[in-house]
Amino acid sequence: MTIDLEALYIDLHRHPELSFQETRTAGIVTQHLTDLGIEFEEGIGKTGVAAVIRNPSTGSGTDRPVVWLRADMDALPVEERTGLEYASTARGVDASGTDVPVMHACGHDMHVTAMLGALERLVATKDEWAGTVVAVFQPAEEHGAGAQSMIADGVLDRFPKPDIVLGQHITPLPAGTIGVRPGTQMAASDGLTVTLFGRGGHGSRPHSTIDPVVMAAATVMRLQTIVSREIDPRDVAVVTVGSIHAGLKNNIIPAEATLELSLRYPDDAARERVLEKVERIVRAEAAASGAEVPPTIVTDHTLPPTINDPVATTRLTHAFNGAFGEGTVVDPGMFTGSEDVSWFAREAGVPLVYWFWGGIDPEKFAEAKASGTLESAIPTNHSPFFAPVLHPTIERGVDALVVAAREFLGAPEGEPAEAK
Amino acid sequence: MTIDLEALYIDLHRHPELSFQETRTAGIVTQHLTDLGIEFEEGIGKTGVAAVIRNPSTGSGTDRPVVWLRADMDALPVEERTGLEYASTARGVDASGTDVPVMHACGHDMHVTAMLGALERLVATKDEWAGTVVAVFQPAEEHGAGAQSMIADGVLDRFPKPDIVLGQHITPLPAGTIGVRPGTQMAASDGLTVTLFGRGGHGSRPHSTIDPVVMAAATVMRLQTIVSREIDPRDVAVVTVGSIHAGLKNNIIPAEATLELSLRYPDDAARERVLEKVERIVRAEAAASGAEVPPTIVTDHTLPPTINDPVATTRLTHAFNGAFGEGTVVDPGMFTGSEDVSWFAREAGVPLVYWFWGGIDPEKFAEAKASGTLESAIPTNHSPFFAPVLHPTIERGVDALVVAAREFLGAPEGEPAEAK
Amino acid sequence: MTIDLEALYIDLHRHPELSFQETRTAGIVTQHLTDLGIEFEEGIGKTGVAAVIRNPSTGSGTDRPVVWLRADMDALPVEERTGLEYASTARGVDASGTDVPVMHACGHDMHVTAMLGALERLVATKDEWAGTVVAVFQPAEEHGAGAQSMIADGVLDRFPKPDIVLGQHITPLPAGTIGVRPGTQMAASDGLTVTLFGRGGHGSRPHSTIDPVVMAAATVMRLQTIVSREIDPRDVAVVTVGSIHAGLKNNIIPAEATLELSLRYPDDAARERVLEKVERIVRAEAAASGAEVPPTIVTDHTLPPTINDPVATTRLTHAFNGAFGEGTVVDPGMFTGSEDVSWFAREAGVPLVYWFWGGIDPEKFAEAKASGTLESAIPTNHSPFFAPVLHPTIERGVDALVVAAREFLGAPEGEPAEAK
Amino acid sequence: MTIDLEALYIDLHRHPELSFQETRTAGIVTQHLTDLGIEFEEGIGKTGVAAVIRNPSTGSGTDRPVVWLRADMDALPVEERTGLEYASTARGVDASGTDVPVMHACGHDMHVTAMLGALERLVATKDEWAGTVVAVFQPAEEHGAGAQSMIADGVLDRFPKPDIVLGQHITPLPAGTIGVRPGTQMAASDGLTVTLFGRGGHGSRPHSTIDPVVMAAATVMRLQTIVSREIDPRDVAVVTVGSIHAGLKNNIIPAEATLELSLRYPDDAARERVLEKVERIVRAEAAASGAEVPPTIVTDHTLPPTINDPVATTRLTHAFNGAFGEGTVVDPGMFTGSEDVSWFAREAGVPLVYWFWGGIDPEKFAEAKASGTLESAIPTNHSPFFAPVLHPTIERGVDALVVAAREFLGAPEGEPAEAK
Repeated sequence: MTIDLEALYIDLHRHPELSFQETRTAGIVTQHLTDLGIEFEEGIGKTGVAAVIRNPSTGSGTDRPVVWLRADMDALPVEERTGLEYASTARGVDASGTDVPVMHACGHDMHVTAMLGALERLVATKDEWAGTVVAVFQPAEEHGAGAQSMIADGVLDRFPKPDIVLGQHITPLPAGTIGVRPGTQMAASDGLTVTLFGRGGHGSRPHSTIDPVVMAAATVMRLQTIVSREIDPRDVAVVTVGSIHAGLKNNIIPAEATLELSLRYPDDAARERVLEKVERIVRAEAAASGAEVPPTIVTDHTLPPTINDPVATTRLTHAFNGAFGEGTVVDPGMFTGSEDVSWFAREAGVPLVYWFWGGIDPEKFAEAKASGTLESAIPTNHSPFFAPVLHPTIERGVDALVVAAREFLGAPEGEPAEAK
Repeated sequence: MTIDLEALYIDLHRHPELSFQETRTAGIVTQHLTDLGIEFEEGIGKTGVAAVIRNPSTGSGTDRPVVWLRADMDALPVEERTGLEYASTARGVDASGTDVPVMHACGHDMHVTAMLGALERLVATKDEWAGTVVAVFQPAEEHGAGAQSMIADGVLDRFPKPDIVLGQHITPLPAGTIGVRPGTQMAASDGLTVTLFGRGGHGSRPHSTIDPVVMAAATVMRLQTIVSREIDPRDVAVVTVGSIHAGLKNNIIPAEATLELSLRYPDDAARERVLEKVERIVRAEAAASGAEVPPTIVTDHTLPPTINDPVATTRLTHAFNGAFGEGTVVDPGMFTGSEDVSWFAREAGVPLVYWFWGGIDPEKFAEAKASGTLESAIPTNHSPFFAPVLHPTIERGVDALVVAAREFLGAPEGEPAEAK
Repeated sequence: MTIDLEALYIDLHRHPELSFQETRTAGIVTQHLTDLGIEFEEGIGKTGVAAVIRNPSTGSGTDRPVVWLRADMDALPVEERTGLEYASTARGVDASGTDVPVMHACGHDMHVTAMLGALERLVATKDEWAGTVVAVFQPAEEHGAGAQSMIADGVLDRFPKPDIVLGQHITPLPAGTIGVRPGTQMAASDGLTVTLFGRGGHGSRPHSTIDPVVMAAATVMRLQTIVSREIDPRDVAVVTVGSIHAGLKNNIIPAEATLELSLRYPDDAARERVLEKVERIVRAEAAASGAEVPPTIVTDHTLPPTINDPVATTRLTHAFNGAFGEGTVVDPGMFTGSEDVSWFAREAGVPLVYWFWGGIDPEKFAEAKASGTLESAIPTNHSPFFAPVLHPTIERGVDALVVAAREFLGAPEGEPAEAK
Repeated sequence: MTIDLEALYIDLHRHPELSFQETRTAGIVTQHLTDLGIEFEEGIGKTGVAAVIRNPSTGSGTDRPVVWLRADMDALPVEERTGLEYASTARGVDASGTDVPVMHACGHDMHVTAMLGALERLVATKDEWAGTVVAVFQPAEEHGAGAQSMIADGVLDRFPKPDIVLGQHITPLPAGTIGVRPGTQMAASDGLTVTLFGRGGHGSRPHSTIDPVVMAAATVMRLQTIVSREIDPRDVAVVTVGSIHAGLKNNIIPAEATLELSLRYPDDAARERVLEKVERIVRAEAAASGAEVPPTIVTDHTLPPTINDPVATTRLTHAFNGAFGEGTVVDPGMFTGSEDVSWFAREAGVPLVYWFWGGIDPEKFAEAKASGTLESAIPTNHSPFFAPVLHPTIERGVDALVVAAREFLGAPEGEPAEAK
């Protein structure tokens, strides 16, 4: 049996599912696991799946080393505009009950594809390695909730505990390239919902209302000054208002406005400072509007920084360059994006390495770089135009997972493990 | 037969329907018209109803004078917060397919109630007047589309043409009071939808996007300067952004933002000037953001100014003061709200009188006025707290329509019409 | 002797003087008063002059009626750009010690010219009237301080008390036209100085500062919402930030910013509401910036509304139309500009009439009106392009003062006063 | 002879002079040079001084190595608020003719003091080194103009050409500490003056004007979005509006507003991008206001990045740690401040090392760091509270210059230079 990875990817891409709704995806995953003869449990943390390959299978089942590989499965409420033949036209109902378009705009379809490919390879090459591989198909990474949800559901107890946690993410680097750095690889993040309370009324009588649309607009403009004025220009911080909603009709001034904020920072000290500034501005702008009810600020999720273990990262960098050629691995810098993968390693108290692999046609990338149009010409994750090339992206994703797992797994009986 | 108007009002209030969806309301109307033996047609302009009382019924059917009375039927996407025992908990699906709360926050339930009460009275007192009464139950006033829709559907041809068009609106004046003025009674209005185009992307990578949330916020703030800086302080103008929507998730920067604007002005010259300013600002703010696609500005509806015929208004003022006591009629000033009632009179080329009648407990009103809290203590139309007192509001609404109709109808045969 | 009024006007225009510095102007005034044989005192309220014509001179000196005529003398810190041959190139030092350009951008040079012409005429026609004329040449109207300064210096005690106070202002109406209305003719006004306190530092290290430039900019943008959102669109209100100052150098973030505000409203109730809103916004925007020291708000001057006595205004309207032709007087509406002339009448408890007279070439005015470019084509008071035509503006200004004074003065002995 | 450096510093601090006006300072410098028997020229680049010590003096006068030491002399238009006994109360007239307070808020008084102390030491220890020292006392660093001015005046031809250029800056590090890093040490910078053109008029008639105060405020708010939204959060960029000026009086809407901007970036590519964004926003905001005249943007100065030669910096780091103890040198990170010192090295095509030395009481620094109040408790350069402790700041400044110069100078005859 050989999984047709291209067909698998296209199928997953055409059928994206929102966070905690990845039932079709999980079904495809478990079908393949079954076909591969891999032991698994499903419905962990609502829609998550975890699988385990014990090699040799006759051992205790927790033969060291235990390597966890993680792939996330969920898609985003984005309307695909790639124009691809296999573009998504799917819709879903989000957590608030709203009907929304859905797209794998973050490439988790590629993560699932590469993971299944890697598992097939690891099964096929069992005589070349020893130890235990746990594959985690995680839901709801985009909500920053899936890892904690699986942990809360006992995944760390129900499966052999990791010695190391590994994961990878597709990114707008040239296909073939791998990006990884020791230390902080991705930012910490908070998602906030801010609700501003005004007083509604007729659109023709603003003076009898407290206009929450103006309150929201002034708040958004003022929030810009946190990064532009209050953060050391040499530090990394992001204050994004990802959504703003108020009102249903042009001639009714609504009573409320809602902002959803995504904040990024390299560490917990910066986190506290930025949260304090956001709160200060939100409260003051409501006061400037004469709001009678103070605004509410709710934290929807908190993501820790993703910190790569320095020793393991150096080891893996050598392994990748050895396998794929010197220069394959580049330092992508710290990403301002965030991840919940590190919860697995934090909770288990073991090292994490999380790397990026490229999905952009190398020629197109080189042209864009030469013309200084990288930012505008190459759609990034979460863009409606995000479209990794299929090859060699799929292959490199599979190979990277296998190389990485093998780097930390043991040698088969009779072979010297220290050859590593 | 006597309609229980309080029960009718409460029933309508509990079952509000969005614009062009007033089928239950129209059904109640036609049931009562049938009970009263009044001839009618339904489904005019989608969900409108028109009825005619010919007196004497044996005449040509178009015996002059012909008085048109108009009541609008639709409700608003507002979530009721009055706490009334009979408060609406209804929901509906608006034109964009969104599920929304629905409330008679503009009091059209009172309009329908008063109209049916007035028709019953006019039928019961046929021996006291002569002529033709046409009662128009109009849909979709809140969309500014219902009057034109009924006209397009031939209501002016299918019923006796008016000599005068009369209408009334519930308002936050003390119950018992009537407000009317000759000349411009209500402002002209346009409803615009502005779509701003940015470039979407990941919330942690703002530099790879063109943020439409910031573009929208800057646009809202700049639009304030039209009224604050560019309109003669002595002129009336309103630029309301009644809704703002962008984004679905805190960590995705969306590709677009949508603003819905409600504009008000006393005349067409001011209209052109304000529209020009709105367009100038919207385009420039998109340019300030470096938008690659220019914004679109679509006019959703245009409402003419509501201009009361001076002669007819003076006549009616005397009639109201005569019937209800001197001092009943006050000059409410020009309202910045808008109406589509005048399309009927404009199209027919006949005079219009449109008045307001009060729905606030007079004591509560007096207290609020004395303490200078009128604006904050008395919920206005379109507020989720809008709640006219039932009595004497219902009675005065019925009486006002009857007095007004009788003022412009003829005397019964044998009586000198010129007694008026 | 006949004053060459054109030469006088041009000389005054070329030598404008800032508020409370009108010494050269006062010197020219007193020279002409001396030449005309009119009794006067100078240095009243610092630089003011008051003169009195008693007719007959042998009476008590306070023969009723006593008519006060007022002209203001000061110029503005505006750099003239009219391109006129006699344009001002003058400079002055303002109250804060800053060197500034100076221009008669408000036309007080025309006021002084017309007043001296009117006094000459009144002296020459003493046999046609009886009573007392007091001519007040007031300083510092632009500071809103001159009238109170003269009153504090005893002008109402040192001269016969008025039975009526009259004054006039040049305005962008067609030359020949007079604009006046009973009731509120000009708005009440306050001038405020707002000081915002941040924390200074190096321009490259914004995070170590509290940036008062951003604080000031956000405050200015938020202040726009008072008029755009919080004032009934049918009411008159103006919130102008006439000056903003912060910083001395691009690479130093300053510690403070200063805003000067000019507020306008029709009455004292509106005044209180607007002041409250200004204070609310200023304080909240400082809080949004995290200011450690709260802002200060100082009232620099308060001007009362200028309210024309209804009876006297009607009388004067007839007199003007009689003298200059029906249609000369138009209702200019309420002006949002403010004046301190009414302090004289208020303090004395007598009626005031204050009118406007036109200074624009009638043909140019008509063309601009026809093409809808009145606002842009006709420079208004305080514009660097403000340039009244010399004729018939000077003549009409003289005539209007004489006609008005004569309307309220008595008939000479032997003539029946009631002929009026 | 021994210069009393503390007295010298206090004298310089009490008598700060604005850029290109450093005549008193230059006079003190030349007096000391004369006393020390050091050859010099003055008036170079207007108010600059350069001195040369040739050792041995009997050589060609350009005996290699030639080490240039540079100190800048000018002060800032800042009003001192340190409360120090020797605080400046000086005032000056800036380039625009405005009377301003003056303060050594950037510590150039310390630079001059340390330089004179170092020269005295080098003279006194001539038997320990060989080569040529050129000491440059530069004017107008704060204008970014002094280095170029001295170069244009031939300083590189009139004195022995450098083999290396060295310089130092006092900074808020603990006294005793030295901060230096190879590569980009300080940002590139541009100073821009933006003039926005509106249309002036009376403060009560905003609709007849184009309000440049609102235009300026909207521009300032929008400029914040460059850093907050358009720059990669991992890159360094600063957009500071250091000054904003418009208007002279609350009731006149002025015709223009002026903004002074200070921009910072690590390299020329970022420079071009940011300048483009500034221009885009400035133009669009003027368009949003309906400006009839486009704004002007003038570059007042351009400062290159200050890039430390890696080899020389490593060498000097070892020298400092050797002389003052391991751990003395810290990596201060890239500074967002800018310098014109590198023009000397760029023009001569030789390496530059530019380091910082601390001036804060180490205990106070440690406390502030521990309590997380570094930014607020320790006044930075350009703050009105900037106040380095006298000791050991003066001593360390002298020593650092001497150690650094000696590191790159030769050994005296007979000693092996390669001992270095």
